[in-house]
Amino acid sequence: MSVTTTATIASFGGKLLKLSHAATTTKCEMKFNLFLPPQTQQGKIPVLIYLSGLTCTADNCSEKGFFQHAASKKGIAVLYPDTSPRGLNIAGEDDSYDFGSGAGFYVDATKAPYNAGYNMYSYVTEELPKTVFDAFPQLDASRVSITGHSMGGHGALTLFLRNPGKYKSVSAFAPITNPINCPWGQKAFAGYFGDDQNKWKEHDATELIKKWSGGALDILIDVGTGDNFYKQGQLLPENFEAAARDAGLSVNIRYQPDYDHSYYTMATFADDHVEHAAKYLFA
Amino acid sequence: MSVTTTATIASFGGKLLKLSHAATTTKCEMKFNLFLPPQTQQGKIPVLIYLSGLTCTADNCSEKGFFQHAASKKGIAVLYPDTSPRGLNIAGEDDSYDFGSGAGFYVDATKAPYNAGYNMYSYVTEELPKTVFDAFPQLDASRVSITGHSMGGHGALTLFLRNPGKYKSVSAFAPITNPINCPWGQKAFAGYFGDDQNKWKEHDATELIKKWSGGALDILIDVGTGDNFYKQGQLLPENFEAAARDAGLSVNIRYQPDYDHSYYTMATFADDHVEHAAKYLFA
Repeated sequence: MSVTTTATIASFGGKLLKLSHAATTTKCEMKFNLFLPPQTQQGKIPVLIYLSGLTCTADNCSEKGFFQHAASKKGIAVLYPDTSPRGLNIAGEDDSYDFGSGAGFYVDATKAPYNAGYNMYSYVTEELPKTVFDAFPQLDASRVSITGHSMGGHGALTLFLRNPGKYKSVSAFAPITNPINCPWGQKAFAGYFGDDQNKWKEHDATELIKKWSGGALDILIDVGTGDNFYKQGQLLPENFEAAARDAGLSVNIRYQPDYDHSYYTMATFADDHVEHAAKYLFA
Repeated sequence: MSVTTTATIASFGGKLLKLSHAATTTKCEMKFNLFLPPQTQQGKIPVLIYLSGLTCTADNCSEKGFFQHAASKKGIAVLYPDTSPRGLNIAGEDDSYDFGSGAGFYVDATKAPYNAGYNMYSYVTEELPKTVFDAFPQLDASRVSITGHSMGGHGALTLFLRNPGKYKSVSAFAPITNPINCPWGQKAFAGYFGDDQNKWKEHDATELIKKWSGGALDILIDVGTGDNFYKQGQLLPENFEAAARDAGLSVNIRYQPDYDHSYYTMATFADDHVEHAAKYLFA
């Protein structure tokens, strides 16, 4: 698939590329951003995928997340996908901030009408990486880590846990860790999957970690204690932590005093998450 | 004057406060942001004022400029003023992106109808600092530096050059350095001052540096060679550099390859500008 470059922006010694391509899985033109660090001239470089939260495009974190700061120093490319298909003209897809456009939840919908293109799971795990590695041979397809925020934190955790070995590491900011038990997740999974609770569990990080057989885990999660969505029970990190503990696994959940759900939190701790990924990408 | 706190946001170990107050000079409620670094508990801390460019509010740089990153480490507060009065209901004030609302140009207008409140020079040099230092006694009114972007770079340079000794240091990103000779400046000065060319020169950095008598200068300026406004002759840093050289003064203008006019540039070099300010704030 060919990739169209709509902008090339100098950033932290590297280049932030704004790109788009005609995606087969999502049946529409998909925009995404790719940060190439200055080390791109020095051999194959690893990739950190950042999955965004509800309402976001690839641009929000590119502008406000501060990942380029550390990625530039470490020599890591950062891939910022969009959060849903766009413009499929499905009735109602633009009506809610937490379902449809901007809210693909990194699943392949099985229920009509969203099964006509809402395939963000296949898009992010297969089509987008293939497109990117074909177009940018200087990137190393064998070294990919994943992270994300909120809905994107859910995406990062579930994609990692469903695919042992596919990603070198995972981390998350304020992730939705138990969507089958929170309003955001219940609305999304009912809309994308219908009533099949087994299907819901296949995309729930807390359920997935109970069945993890991929060996020791080192998952870094930051949650702000001032995060209103945490307080409202949308994130439920305690459930994830308990499930991990019951499975004999440890996860490093840092409850950051007063931090909220915004990009101010990501910017503050982005360096730590890039460092976490670097530990495994350069192991 | 009392200050209203509308939000307190954890950021880089400190607090970003969203504030507002009823301003006398600009005859309206003015919003601004203030970053307090974690060292605020450890005695008086110095302040860096960041002046924003056309169309911006205090929020743009707070979210995308990443001054908090270095300011947090150094122990410097960052004050982000708005760029104009708001809601004065002057006919036409919202019609242009480069004049009126969001485009106060850090001058006191002398021409009607804008002389009814477009007094951003007095606001930024006098009223806002007085308000802030009264409300936050942990800040050190004797140690203030100034920086800014584009129109705000013009503001930083002219406020510094008009007030020897008031600011400990100055730097700028892509500043409008010779407004009397560029379209943005000519439009703004005609609208705020009328035809009096002497008045125009009083707010032109290139004219002001010719008459500077404050001793040696150490001005840091970053301009991107990919900046379309630089290419269009809106910034004219070469004029400023030549005037400085003719006056026997040196300025450090760094032409950054490929960087554009956006916050991606500020984010990349913000650490350097905070470092530049710190050298003088902690001298």
